[in-house]
Amino acid sequence: MEWALHCCVVLTSVAEPVPAARLAELHDVSPTYLAKQLQALSRAGLVHSVQGKSGGYVLTRSPASITLLDVVEAVDGPDPAFVCTEIRQRGPFATPAESCTTPCPVARAMATAESARRAALSSVSIADLAEQVEISSGEGALSSIGTWLAPGNV
Amino acid sequence: MEWALHCCVVLTSVAEPVPAARLAELHDVSPTYLAKQLQALSRAGLVHSVQGKSGGYVLTRSPASITLLDVVEAVDGPDPAFVCTEIRQRGPFATPAESCTTPCPVARAMATAESARRAALSSVSIADLAEQVEISSGEGALSSIGTWLAPGNV
Repeated sequence: MEWALHCCVVLTSVAEPVPAARLAELHDVSPTYLAKQLQALSRAGLVHSVQGKSGGYVLTRSPASITLLDVVEAVDGPDPAFVCTEIRQRGPFATPAESCTTPCPVARAMATAESARRAALSSVSIADLAEQVEISSGEGALSSIGTWLAPGNV
Repeated sequence: MEWALHCCVVLTSVAEPVPAARLAELHDVSPTYLAKQLQALSRAGLVHSVQGKSGGYVLTRSPASITLLDVVEAVDGPDPAFVCTEIRQRGPFATPAESCTTPCPVARAMATAESARRAALSSVSIADLAEQVEISSGEGALSSIGTWLAPGNV
């Protein structure tokens, strides 16, 4: 997750495709490990893999239109952490399945908490994060990384 | 998690300690499995285990003062799902550790989402859930369970 988010942020700094090995070098992490994160981003349609000599990964759309939730779901999957298994339908006081047309109070409360988390994650885009990085690391920080990442510099 | 939450809700219906085996029977689940959830609740100080012939589990405090967050943390642990490993301190553009006095933008955004989830979980108590169960299952639903759970009925 953390690697996927950092990759998306640095990919905002360069228009050309960036080889996975170059991203791994930037982050000082195993290329195999990073490849899995990039594949997850690719399956979710957030990055596109360009084949060939100057191939690599590139964001598929504007960083302002990619939210943290998109990245979190790409890596962790879209399912919420809490899954209701309909405990109320078990045991001597079982509610008949046909009466369980709405989620039980426990499931509802957990879903509300999950929605609050998702709303917070959707309210921040990769462009927002990139802007925050510029503020905390100094203006030009990301463009220096972008220059370094550009395939011509490999 | 789901079992622990349901156990806390049904324990609001009875003042006497309830044997783990009785809770397992109510929920039609393996006693061994449920014991683990009850031990987690016990370690977190949410339930108390009473030894002896009429022993069992009892809530340690008023259900209005036990929140969903208390139960979730008891089972999942208090650590947030996202753990920052300070990626910014790695690679050719590493920020020196001594300059990393505040969380990076990625960690901050993830922490904000986690806080939103925790705030939602803290805003609901076990008493609230019990009240909702009475509303959805009909008044008296929990007290019938309470009568059934009472050790004298085993």
